[in-house]
Amino acid sequence: MTDKAFAHTDPTDLHPDIAELKPFLNPTGVAVIGATASPEKLGFGLTRNLINSEYGGGIHLVNPKGGEILGRPVFPDIESVPDPVDLAVVLVPARFVAETIADCGRRGIKSIIIASGGFKEVGEEGLELEHEILRVAQEWGCRLIGPNCVGLIHTHVPLDTTFLSPREMKPGSVAFVSQSGAICAAVVDWSTGQGFGLSALISLGNQVDVTESEALELVAADPHTRVITVYLEGVSDGRAFVREISRVSRHKPIIALKVGRSEAGGRAVASHTGALAGQDAVYEAAFRRNGILRAQTTEELFAWARALANSPLPRGRRVAILTNAGGPAVAAMDAISAEELLPAVFSEKTRTALQARLHPAANTQNPVDMLAAAGPRDYAECLSIIMQDDGVDGVLVIMPPPPMYAAEDVASAIIPIIRQGDKPVLVVPMGEERIRDAVRRFRAAGVSEYRFPERAVTAMSVLAKRAEFLSNGHLRILDCSLDSKSIETILDDNKSNEGFLDLTTASAIIAAAGIPIARTRPADSSEDAVRIALEEGLPVAMKISSRHVVHKSDVGGLALNLASETDVSRAFADLSTVTAGIPQNQSQICVQKMVPGGLELVVGAVRDPQFGPVVMFGTGGTNVESMNDVVFGLAPLSEEDLDDMFSSTYGGKQLIGPRSLYRGGLDGVRETLCRLGQLMDEYPAVAEIEINPLIVPPKSNEAIAVDARVKLRTTE
Amino acid sequence: MTDKAFAHTDPTDLHPDIAELKPFLNPTGVAVIGATASPEKLGFGLTRNLINSEYGGGIHLVNPKGGEILGRPVFPDIESVPDPVDLAVVLVPARFVAETIADCGRRGIKSIIIASGGFKEVGEEGLELEHEILRVAQEWGCRLIGPNCVGLIHTHVPLDTTFLSPREMKPGSVAFVSQSGAICAAVVDWSTGQGFGLSALISLGNQVDVTESEALELVAADPHTRVITVYLEGVSDGRAFVREISRVSRHKPIIALKVGRSEAGGRAVASHTGALAGQDAVYEAAFRRNGILRAQTTEELFAWARALANSPLPRGRRVAILTNAGGPAVAAMDAISAEELLPAVFSEKTRTALQARLHPAANTQNPVDMLAAAGPRDYAECLSIIMQDDGVDGVLVIMPPPPMYAAEDVASAIIPIIRQGDKPVLVVPMGEERIRDAVRRFRAAGVSEYRFPERAVTAMSVLAKRAEFLSNGHLRILDCSLDSKSIETILDDNKSNEGFLDLTTASAIIAAAGIPIARTRPADSSEDAVRIALEEGLPVAMKISSRHVVHKSDVGGLALNLASETDVSRAFADLSTVTAGIPQNQSQICVQKMVPGGLELVVGAVRDPQFGPVVMFGTGGTNVESMNDVVFGLAPLSEEDLDDMFSSTYGGKQLIGPRSLYRGGLDGVRETLCRLGQLMDEYPAVAEIEINPLIVPPKSNEAIAVDARVKLRTTE
Repeated sequence: MTDKAFAHTDPTDLHPDIAELKPFLNPTGVAVIGATASPEKLGFGLTRNLINSEYGGGIHLVNPKGGEILGRPVFPDIESVPDPVDLAVVLVPARFVAETIADCGRRGIKSIIIASGGFKEVGEEGLELEHEILRVAQEWGCRLIGPNCVGLIHTHVPLDTTFLSPREMKPGSVAFVSQSGAICAAVVDWSTGQGFGLSALISLGNQVDVTESEALELVAADPHTRVITVYLEGVSDGRAFVREISRVSRHKPIIALKVGRSEAGGRAVASHTGALAGQDAVYEAAFRRNGILRAQTTEELFAWARALANSPLPRGRRVAILTNAGGPAVAAMDAISAEELLPAVFSEKTRTALQARLHPAANTQNPVDMLAAAGPRDYAECLSIIMQDDGVDGVLVIMPPPPMYAAEDVASAIIPIIRQGDKPVLVVPMGEERIRDAVRRFRAAGVSEYRFPERAVTAMSVLAKRAEFLSNGHLRILDCSLDSKSIETILDDNKSNEGFLDLTTASAIIAAAGIPIARTRPADSSEDAVRIALEEGLPVAMKISSRHVVHKSDVGGLALNLASETDVSRAFADLSTVTAGIPQNQSQICVQKMVPGGLELVVGAVRDPQFGPVVMFGTGGTNVESMNDVVFGLAPLSEEDLDDMFSSTYGGKQLIGPRSLYRGGLDGVRETLCRLGQLMDEYPAVAEIEINPLIVPPKSNEAIAVDARVKLRTTE
Repeated sequence: MTDKAFAHTDPTDLHPDIAELKPFLNPTGVAVIGATASPEKLGFGLTRNLINSEYGGGIHLVNPKGGEILGRPVFPDIESVPDPVDLAVVLVPARFVAETIADCGRRGIKSIIIASGGFKEVGEEGLELEHEILRVAQEWGCRLIGPNCVGLIHTHVPLDTTFLSPREMKPGSVAFVSQSGAICAAVVDWSTGQGFGLSALISLGNQVDVTESEALELVAADPHTRVITVYLEGVSDGRAFVREISRVSRHKPIIALKVGRSEAGGRAVASHTGALAGQDAVYEAAFRRNGILRAQTTEELFAWARALANSPLPRGRRVAILTNAGGPAVAAMDAISAEELLPAVFSEKTRTALQARLHPAANTQNPVDMLAAAGPRDYAECLSIIMQDDGVDGVLVIMPPPPMYAAEDVASAIIPIIRQGDKPVLVVPMGEERIRDAVRRFRAAGVSEYRFPERAVTAMSVLAKRAEFLSNGHLRILDCSLDSKSIETILDDNKSNEGFLDLTTASAIIAAAGIPIARTRPADSSEDAVRIALEEGLPVAMKISSRHVVHKSDVGGLALNLASETDVSRAFADLSTVTAGIPQNQSQICVQKMVPGGLELVVGAVRDPQFGPVVMFGTGGTNVESMNDVVFGLAPLSEEDLDDMFSSTYGGKQLIGPRSLYRGGLDGVRETLCRLGQLMDEYPAVAEIEINPLIVPPKSNEAIAVDARVKLRTTE
């Protein structure tokens, strides 16, 4: 494993503005404002940690009481602190923080960590204090991390500005950026206990100023950081976040644990699209698009980070297993299949070499089972043989406690082979006590080890995904030309119509966007309806259009398959009883040529408060919410987005299935989604669109919008 | 936590035959045949372990060489061994095993563990030896565990007949039954390292005689065993297995890790049902039906076992969280939602009590965040308050390393409260080094602890599932009356027709089973086709029926929506060109009234070689395999099976959705599935059935079979 394997981590085009944040991670001198000698206070912990961290620059303690702490003099104020100093850590009561920031600004210190609590998290009064400190900071050109944060660690400087309780810190290559302060103590402890080691840790606190996006850039620019992990509860500006991560993630892998998945989205729910566009679905889209590896659990976050920090990336998905134990290898093969990795198939040469080496009853096909008696030399030599096979992209070594040998001797035998190879090898020492020394050796050597085979397989899968993301080119954003003149005319005509448009107008916008929609015409009378029906050709559908009716079929506002003049007249009469209950001029009865049955999809678009326009795709019909088979993509969509959206939904699978009757409609659906995204992207006046159903008739080449809702908003 | 919480584990109606296996776990004396003093041999390890286990009965070492091992005399043969002795452990070369069994039988020893390898696992010759040892064992009325097994452990007797390397064993209440010998060493090590402790371990080896079903019964009858874990690669007799587990699982929870999910099923693939009825889908059905908790990974197997061994069961799904850390609690809430548990809502009394206890900025709603400074007393008192709330069924205590206190002091403060309560409390000490002592205390006290909040939530979910399984009554098996006279007549008429029947005959069987099927009539000529079409009413569908054609639509063997006489004639001509390629009298051209479009489902049934008749349900149409949206149930089906089958498939969700256009067809689909299961159950001559599509038209009360395939087999 050479440094070349990590060549992709060279940060050549990081944001230049990030330079002003450099003192946070690499200060020339640090002032602790609020240092104290009382051991039960956080200000003492902070002072102690900073001194213990062996930070090489000046450490200046400030407290109006003066005196001495841990044998160091205390300055009465920041003004008395000598140069060089460019970072202040503030732990004074909330009401004094604004003043302290001003003092720092005056003293020329522009980077300030506010560890103090008592702000937004305690209510209205705290929120006002928070506005105040931001105002003061901006006045003095200072940047703030916090308030209400745990602080910041850089193990290579070294630097520790946290008040976490004392502990050993192992320098490493995994950075951790967190919106939760509480988890930081556990992460520091895990990083040591699990043997991966952190490069840097940033606790963001209430994020009054420096955001998660800036913190990501800051750690990405750090040469000691190979992998970035982030614990997110939300982002302050979704589009900025996407911009940063798309820049950073090509250089260094980002693994995100986004919590708060179960929280309901905060927006009004007037359509399926609105109801289903929970924050989480949109984060999913943003992550997918930018190659962010999304961990589902805290456990995965660090299991994956260890693999990415230690291992070269595989060239493909073909995984070999080497073991002395059949059972766990079967479990690993199951996991390989579940993760869509591939079992490697050995060359004849590999099999011959293994056969020559092993007992005749051993299995020399993948998974290689050397039998229970296998010792260190067997492991080492077979691993070498397997790694030389061009058909192998990565290897799992699964080792339950060997009955005849010490696990640590197996570890010592295979570590050099793993370190010298250019393929990822993940090791699974199974057990606890009896493999403890083996685990210690693997960790010391920077070999990723996992207690269970299935966990190692998910880590291998993450390595493969990372490699694939890097080998893919940039996104191919789709471009469809819209009939901008017609769209603008309709939007102009409806400038004052904030809210949902009537069906006729909505249909006109959809059509102007270039999406085929079954023509819909309003009828004034029964006779008018019959005339239109005959012009369009029987059978027809009739429906009411009104902003007061969300689900037409629930209120009897929909009549299908009307095949005769009598049917049309009767339907008009029936629908009139429904519209009679709606304020005058706020409903229409519309006639539409009946579209034959087919695959019913839903497509839509909405503006996410964080991420801007997003497009939805999934199973349509009357049952959209309970099916909940939808997926989102950020507009404008790319080819890659569309492929992902189709393959991750049942509706999409029905469309793309190799023997699907609906496959002919695929291009039409692609284009519809693309056009929807572009409409949202180009016309800020459009707030929300939903087409449900979008019907793909069997064995056709079409995708036809049958019903549509469009909502406008006023824009200045 | 009193013993009452485990009252459900009293094994009152276990199988009486199991008595003959008792000496395996509770022998009166043990003979080791193949004992040796050479420390590098497995026979030495076995002898050493048995002696070290402090087994209280007689330990008799046998080796023709005689002498002494570890200070004990060695008998030259089994005949010389004094009474009492009723268990032999055999570790002699494979070719001497049969003779040794005969010797044991002659000596009156009927329970024999064959640890020797060199049987089926090494090939044909070994397989013959295996048949031979079974024959000899049956001749002498002996029961065998193995060959090629690791042996057996009972920590409470105590007894250890394995040759695993020496280690500490912690007596516990989790039994482990394994078809993999290799994993046993790791499991023994985990059980000590993770602090749960085993009651018994049985390594089954090649299972020439005693099966996994018998081993399950054996450990279930053991009073020290509260939870049974099992590592399965396959079962020897599926129906016997189902019978045993359904008996056992009402008394003691069984958690199964079934590996080999990715292996292809072994049967011929001539229909979708056949192709999709992989072994794994059928295991899934058997497990679901019998309340077997299926772990997806080795890690889950023991994470769940610990919770079930230690904790009382919850009365419902409402979970409260107590923590000093907001972030991890949000991650836990996500997991609660993902596992379909419910966040508990506190009573006014609880909130008032918490408010009185905690800092004003603390969150006294669920999840309770006591803030970072919370200490042991805060944890203990708040936990007491929460556990007294009737709206709380279980509690998670999430504790990152507290900044101001030692985690072990928090542990000591809350352990008595957890032990005294009658609700499950799972604890999450987060970190590694800094929570090590806390973890030790929790383990010593029998409190289940997990390193990550998400893992603890899945364990809580398993407790809830177990409680629900126990509170459900027995399965309500459905019964539909079939027209047995017609079915028998058709089967009699086609006795010699092994293989797939023509469509007309297949349709007749389906109809006789009481399943509505669109009438299908063969046409001899173009004129005949037109006549039938007019009789049935236009439009019609026409299709070829032949055992030589599996996918009609692929070969142009299907014509839909024929609305005129001309269309029908032309279709007959087109289809004739297809049938021209098929041997004479082996195809038909059929005419069927066109069924309108609707929800397309697939239903089918097949005979699983292990589990007998199973019924399939899922998304139908031309795209069945690539959608792979199917689920299986064991025939005859129960109401519970049907509910599970609908809610676990996309096709089922389209049917049962509250606003579904197809909901009217639900009863029809239920009945169709029930009738299919019963047909398979009652008529062994039916090998396989598939109805695809089964169409549910929108807003109808019907489910109509449109195309069907039926395969017969000869039965004696």
